[in-house]
Amino acid sequence: MNMSFLQELFNSITQRDALLRRRNNEHITPDHAHMIEACHVLLESDGEASSITLASRALALYRRLDDEQKQRFFERMAEEFAADPERIDAAYEAYREARDNHHLQTLFNVCEPRRQELLRRLNLASGGTYELVRMREDLLRMMDHSSDLGAINADFIHLFGSWFNRGFLVLKRIDWNTPASILEKIIRYEAVHEIHDWNDLRRRLDSRDRRCFAFFHPAIGDEPLIFVEVALHKGLPKQIQPILEDSQHDLDDPMTADTAAFFGISNCQTGLRGISFGNFLIKQVVQELKLELPQLRHFVTLSPVPGFRHWLEQHYVEESGRLSDDAQQTLALLDAPDWHEQPEQAEKLKAVVKPLAAHYLLEEKNRHGLPLNAVARFHLGNGASLHRVNWLGDISRKGLKQSAGLMVNYLYALDDIERNHENYIANATVACSSEVRDLGRRARKMTKGETVK
Amino acid sequence: MNMSFLQELFNSITQRDALLRRRNNEHITPDHAHMIEACHVLLESDGEASSITLASRALALYRRLDDEQKQRFFERMAEEFAADPERIDAAYEAYREARDNHHLQTLFNVCEPRRQELLRRLNLASGGTYELVRMREDLLRMMDHSSDLGAINADFIHLFGSWFNRGFLVLKRIDWNTPASILEKIIRYEAVHEIHDWNDLRRRLDSRDRRCFAFFHPAIGDEPLIFVEVALHKGLPKQIQPILEDSQHDLDDPMTADTAAFFGISNCQTGLRGISFGNFLIKQVVQELKLELPQLRHFVTLSPVPGFRHWLEQHYVEESGRLSDDAQQTLALLDAPDWHEQPEQAEKLKAVVKPLAAHYLLEEKNRHGLPLNAVARFHLGNGASLHRVNWLGDISRKGLKQSAGLMVNYLYALDDIERNHENYIANATVACSSEVRDLGRRARKMTKGETVK
Amino acid sequence: MNMSFLQELFNSITQRDALLRRRNNEHITPDHAHMIEACHVLLESDGEASSITLASRALALYRRLDDEQKQRFFERMAEEFAADPERIDAAYEAYREARDNHHLQTLFNVCEPRRQELLRRLNLASGGTYELVRMREDLLRMMDHSSDLGAINADFIHLFGSWFNRGFLVLKRIDWNTPASILEKIIRYEAVHEIHDWNDLRRRLDSRDRRCFAFFHPAIGDEPLIFVEVALHKGLPKQIQPILEDSQHDLDDPMTADTAAFFGISNCQTGLRGISFGNFLIKQVVQELKLELPQLRHFVTLSPVPGFRHWLEQHYVEESGRLSDDAQQTLALLDAPDWHEQPEQAEKLKAVVKPLAAHYLLEEKNRHGLPLNAVARFHLGNGASLHRVNWLGDISRKGLKQSAGLMVNYLYALDDIERNHENYIANATVACSSEVRDLGRRARKMTKGETVK
Amino acid sequence: MNMSFLQELFNSITQRDALLRRRNNEHITPDHAHMIEACHVLLESDGEASSITLASRALALYRRLDDEQKQRFFERMAEEFAADPERIDAAYEAYREARDNHHLQTLFNVCEPRRQELLRRLNLASGGTYELVRMREDLLRMMDHSSDLGAINADFIHLFGSWFNRGFLVLKRIDWNTPASILEKIIRYEAVHEIHDWNDLRRRLDSRDRRCFAFFHPAIGDEPLIFVEVALHKGLPKQIQPILEDSQHDLDDPMTADTAAFFGISNCQTGLRGISFGNFLIKQVVQELKLELPQLRHFVTLSPVPGFRHWLEQHYVEESGRLSDDAQQTLALLDAPDWHEQPEQAEKLKAVVKPLAAHYLLEEKNRHGLPLNAVARFHLGNGASLHRVNWLGDISRKGLKQSAGLMVNYLYALDDIERNHENYIANATVACSSEVRDLGRRARKMTKGETVK
Repeated sequence: MNMSFLQELFNSITQRDALLRRRNNEHITPDHAHMIEACHVLLESDGEASSITLASRALALYRRLDDEQKQRFFERMAEEFAADPERIDAAYEAYREARDNHHLQTLFNVCEPRRQELLRRLNLASGGTYELVRMREDLLRMMDHSSDLGAINADFIHLFGSWFNRGFLVLKRIDWNTPASILEKIIRYEAVHEIHDWNDLRRRLDSRDRRCFAFFHPAIGDEPLIFVEVALHKGLPKQIQPILEDSQHDLDDPMTADTAAFFGISNCQTGLRGISFGNFLIKQVVQELKLELPQLRHFVTLSPVPGFRHWLEQHYVEESGRLSDDAQQTLALLDAPDWHEQPEQAEKLKAVVKPLAAHYLLEEKNRHGLPLNAVARFHLGNGASLHRVNWLGDISRKGLKQSAGLMVNYLYALDDIERNHENYIANATVACSSEVRDLGRRARKMTKGETVK
Repeated sequence: MNMSFLQELFNSITQRDALLRRRNNEHITPDHAHMIEACHVLLESDGEASSITLASRALALYRRLDDEQKQRFFERMAEEFAADPERIDAAYEAYREARDNHHLQTLFNVCEPRRQELLRRLNLASGGTYELVRMREDLLRMMDHSSDLGAINADFIHLFGSWFNRGFLVLKRIDWNTPASILEKIIRYEAVHEIHDWNDLRRRLDSRDRRCFAFFHPAIGDEPLIFVEVALHKGLPKQIQPILEDSQHDLDDPMTADTAAFFGISNCQTGLRGISFGNFLIKQVVQELKLELPQLRHFVTLSPVPGFRHWLEQHYVEESGRLSDDAQQTLALLDAPDWHEQPEQAEKLKAVVKPLAAHYLLEEKNRHGLPLNAVARFHLGNGASLHRVNWLGDISRKGLKQSAGLMVNYLYALDDIERNHENYIANATVACSSEVRDLGRRARKMTKGETVK
Repeated sequence: MNMSFLQELFNSITQRDALLRRRNNEHITPDHAHMIEACHVLLESDGEASSITLASRALALYRRLDDEQKQRFFERMAEEFAADPERIDAAYEAYREARDNHHLQTLFNVCEPRRQELLRRLNLASGGTYELVRMREDLLRMMDHSSDLGAINADFIHLFGSWFNRGFLVLKRIDWNTPASILEKIIRYEAVHEIHDWNDLRRRLDSRDRRCFAFFHPAIGDEPLIFVEVALHKGLPKQIQPILEDSQHDLDDPMTADTAAFFGISNCQTGLRGISFGNFLIKQVVQELKLELPQLRHFVTLSPVPGFRHWLEQHYVEESGRLSDDAQQTLALLDAPDWHEQPEQAEKLKAVVKPLAAHYLLEEKNRHGLPLNAVARFHLGNGASLHRVNWLGDISRKGLKQSAGLMVNYLYALDDIERNHENYIANATVACSSEVRDLGRRARKMTKGETVK
Repeated sequence: MNMSFLQELFNSITQRDALLRRRNNEHITPDHAHMIEACHVLLESDGEASSITLASRALALYRRLDDEQKQRFFERMAEEFAADPERIDAAYEAYREARDNHHLQTLFNVCEPRRQELLRRLNLASGGTYELVRMREDLLRMMDHSSDLGAINADFIHLFGSWFNRGFLVLKRIDWNTPASILEKIIRYEAVHEIHDWNDLRRRLDSRDRRCFAFFHPAIGDEPLIFVEVALHKGLPKQIQPILEDSQHDLDDPMTADTAAFFGISNCQTGLRGISFGNFLIKQVVQELKLELPQLRHFVTLSPVPGFRHWLEQHYVEESGRLSDDAQQTLALLDAPDWHEQPEQAEKLKAVVKPLAAHYLLEEKNRHGLPLNAVARFHLGNGASLHRVNWLGDISRKGLKQSAGLMVNYLYALDDIERNHENYIANATVACSSEVRDLGRRARKMTKGETVK
């Protein structure tokens, strides 16, 4: 393999880098072929002495590819850095003869796509881990157009599962003493209830009645992986708007709270999709909070019900005849954009919509037999129980549109988490309060004798 | 799987833990069967919610096993947590048909020993990474007695290679401002030139003319992985004793040094044997030193030649007739324990031993065609060159016994490292100075016409 | 002295503190008499065991006084905690007899106003130092109305001079990794060129071509005392607007700058007025910058000329006849609000105003014979020289109104600082470049033969 | 004043500094006259721009003076930098006329010895605060020979009282994670129970049942001012030897302790003698411990009774006839060096010595009417009570010689501290337990009807 060619290319690129910023005209554009070449060189090096440099060069090349070239690079990567069929065949034959650990090990080794070793070597570069997360972000975007890339995605998932093992994650409290460079990322990554500006952020981090925690990974520095926002409260909160508003504080002293309400969990890195941190985060934050504020008695969420309004439309509006006429008529009131501001209409709707929401969360399942609602799946899977459905819990445009204005409290009762979790895993049992169960029953009475579904 | 059994066992253990320290009598002793059970439970959990607890419990059990039980646990682990032959057969058939990435991925997945997932899950426990390193330390000890355990070792190597990727290591300077808890580990782990006590350590860390750097891993906290000791010097040092002694300083100001001499590299974790950090460490330390002390011009080692004396005995003393009679007689002087203090005898020996040492380092190869001497292999593999053989470089008992009192300077010439490294990898070429080459030639003349080997 | 009374009062206050936040109605309002009482108790304690508590209580009382009560407290403090005339008389008599150090010491001790010991004891409270800085802020505000309070001010100056000795100050770099809680103070305290919002701040801290440093005091934590903003530049900057705008960067790499331009120095604590840090700050920042960016060759300011426009009006517009008719007519053009946007008029004005500015800075003195302009006094006193007058250097409304749009570069030439400083101190000599000197001469020719003033 | 002379001298010194370390021969030796000159220059500078440099130079000169020259420097300093008698006379006249705050302020200012401003300016130098502490250490040593220096000492006390105000001190926990550079100072400064080596230190810092805290001052970095050692214990400890020995731990878990026993308080800086930190330290440490270990119920000391054995000899052995014959005979047993190892003799002595110790601590006063014993004065003055006298509490040679083997528990009962303190201050009342009071009464019965003393 010709090192000097790549060396020259690399030099020309880095020199140009400086020039480009001023002149913005280019002479050489690296394409996917250069990148593939750089990967070959990296893989053929002995993995030690010069690998750091080679890895850095390859990543520098990658950064300069446009989307089309990246796509073509991924396509060739899937193909050229797979495993060697002949070695697989031979290893399998030997394994079939011996059926022992030694030959299994050999088979495993030759089955490993060479892409995985390639990714491990790219990770040698300083800052390489984060660049690989970004690379997978690119990949996920391109997978829609080319399902062939699934193999590379599987490699990433395999490696990221190891690298981002919970044992390597670091929990840090985020507050007003956190560096601004991290805080601006919190603003950017908040996915549940948008943070509008720095004043809004300051309200969210006010130490009197708010907490925020994030997971970080030592190798990718100041980039949060996931964070959760908590409101300290007296009693379980019912509505999100008072929590988001920059109004009077309910609490001046966190020691007077009895409840910690998780009202937003945001994944920050698209490139880590499918590598789950959320359940670990919630549980570790519960530990932290109990240590700081031992008087806390309730750990709950204040969660949206995304998809509920859509489900309602599909099953009871478009497909008429399943509800009593009264209920059906009442549901139509939802079409008025300001229904929640009309006390009388809202009251009527409440009697119909709340039971249906309980029904939706308790009974509607996906093809795996698990709750249809993704938020419910997440918290129930963590061992929480469905505790309360809150009417007019989120009256923002988004809240009305997605969740018909409802918000749900999932309860993390420390003594029940493990049992709930196991019942959920074993039997898909949805733990819930009697209040929610009763609501669900009421829904069944509203429908005309038949079970929904 | 019966959780409550393990729960009970675990509770009884932890309660006893406290009691034991006082009463020292036991009722239940966990054995390998409990541990295997705990591993099954961990693997059969869904890998999320309760896994941290299950992993902690399993590791707590492991810690309480005695060596015999550990050995039996490893034996059963090798067997019970391998891959499933039937699934491998099926996946291979499918792959052979399709020959595509998708089926390769499936084959790879089913070939992966379940032990690897088990180890990844044990790593979820707080402090799990370090406990796994310690577990492998146990394993390596027991492998001598039971070669069957090689499969588990391969799993560890596979995972540790990922987890201890250079991208995750953190370089820290060790000096007199370092916490005592870390410094005592430096004392304990120093493997080349023993550190006798805290005063001795302080001399080694004196900022005027010493530097020390270590690699740490974020998940195992204060435990160094490897460290290197550096002497700042004017000119290349020839002898180790003046460097180790707590005598007058040659330098009061590190800015007056022109040479950084690496005189000790110590791996700290037996459980990480074979996961190589040394070459990365040296190169990163060279970068750090150049940044702090830009006037430094030479980066060398002052290294022992372990095995040389033994080789000398074997080839030229026990097997007589290969050297001229004069030389043969001279070599016999080495038997006197104080030969190095007798100027006349030492001088005679120098004329014979130094050339033979050059010959040994340049020409004696192992079965892979690489230098027989492990220290030489390490530095030459990193791209250093064999620069100088120093007579009476180490007159300690250990130095006389292992290296016949010699010490070698390997030179890290920054402009040559990459070329040396590649020549070494490609052709096993040993880069050396003309001085050493001449010495080597002289050795050939001393032997009776024949090439040694 | 009746402790229990104060104890009760204090208890009632702290209990109420909590209540107040909710109910906002009060039963007891502490007044100046309570505060005076608390000070007596503190002074009469033995200064050790219970003093911390007593000091905290007294400061808590003070915080709850309204402005009128504070004023009355200060008035009584000035009177009741002065020194004892009889002891002074006696000590002076003894000193006059003996004329020795021992009796001088006694005299000094009895002359010290008891207020100083009172302030030292208040400083025992946790957070006391900052509260005393705030107390002096109150005092300065009230001194306008009651010159009697000057004695207390003198006590503060005496103690703060000791406590805020430069040896106790800590220099910290402020950048985008600084905690938000400090950055919001930078926004608030910026006094020269307003920082409008967080985006504006981020521009000011961009590590590519900006630096910011602040002095902190260990006992008052996150409150900056003073900070300076620096632009890294190629060549000496002439205009402030390009520096403040969030436009393209001139520099992508700070290593390419040859000039560090100080464009804003802001004192943060009104309560520390007259305790000078600025000169120490500039000099220490120059050291820091030289260490980080050794290629820097020029250290200058880009400073306003506050008061110049006013002086111009007074001397040459209102008091006509001192300038040639031409010049006089030209000056009138300044009345048009957009003169700086009219190239022709601006050019005419330049010919008149720039020389007069040089004259103003070089020749106009206050009653101490030092430059009339405060900014000039500061930098010349630090050893800088008057290097360049920049036409249209600040075309903001404030810049036009105060400085007639001019900005000045004061040059800190490291080799000349000490000499400049001494000449300035000894002879009030204003160091300046030949360019400025020539400008000044031209001004003299414009005036009708007479020296101004 | 001739700057250039000093400049030259200074240059020659610093250049020589480098040379000296090697050649050890000198050409110029600075003497007290140079130092006095440097002080004049510093005082006559304007206190700002060049003062840092001038202060550094003066301190560099001081460091190079030998003891004789230092003494002469102090003598001239006392004389030449006093206040100006004529200005004092004038200011006093004016004050006597006006009797107002303004003239008092002037008088105070002119009475202040110019030495104080000199010391404040020396403090501008980097590291100046610590050098001034060392300078006072020199001064204290020399004051024995020349009482004239008391005036300078008064200046130091005045300034240090301000600079080392408790508000500026920082409490840090010392443990095995503390940098070795600080730990070696803990070894060196321990004044009560010697720390023999690093192993001994490690025992003292074991987090299972030991704590150690120190006060630091931000301006003198890593130099501790004072530190206290604490043993966590079940019940009040009676003997020091089990605490000092590196034997089995009583506690494996600090949460099981109910008592924190302060067994050593060491002042570290001779130069800060008389600036008291000890009481603040104990109280702040009690707060820290209660926060970390809320279950702690008792805060006591385990303190020696230095001087007791000496007092015993003086009053009851040398001056016979004051005790009953029996008691007198028993006391003679103390002369045997191993009396504490003879159970029978020890038992006899206990009956006589313990009561006398209680008597000594309760009744024997110094000329101020306060307890004769300095340790008792310290703790009683802090508000502690005399809780228990422990027989054979310290059987080290030092313990037997100074305290007749006794150790005392002083109890810090949080609810009583303030009252005890005030009673002690107001009436010299010694708070004590009924047990100790009874012991004291028994002593009175042993003496022949008369009150001792």
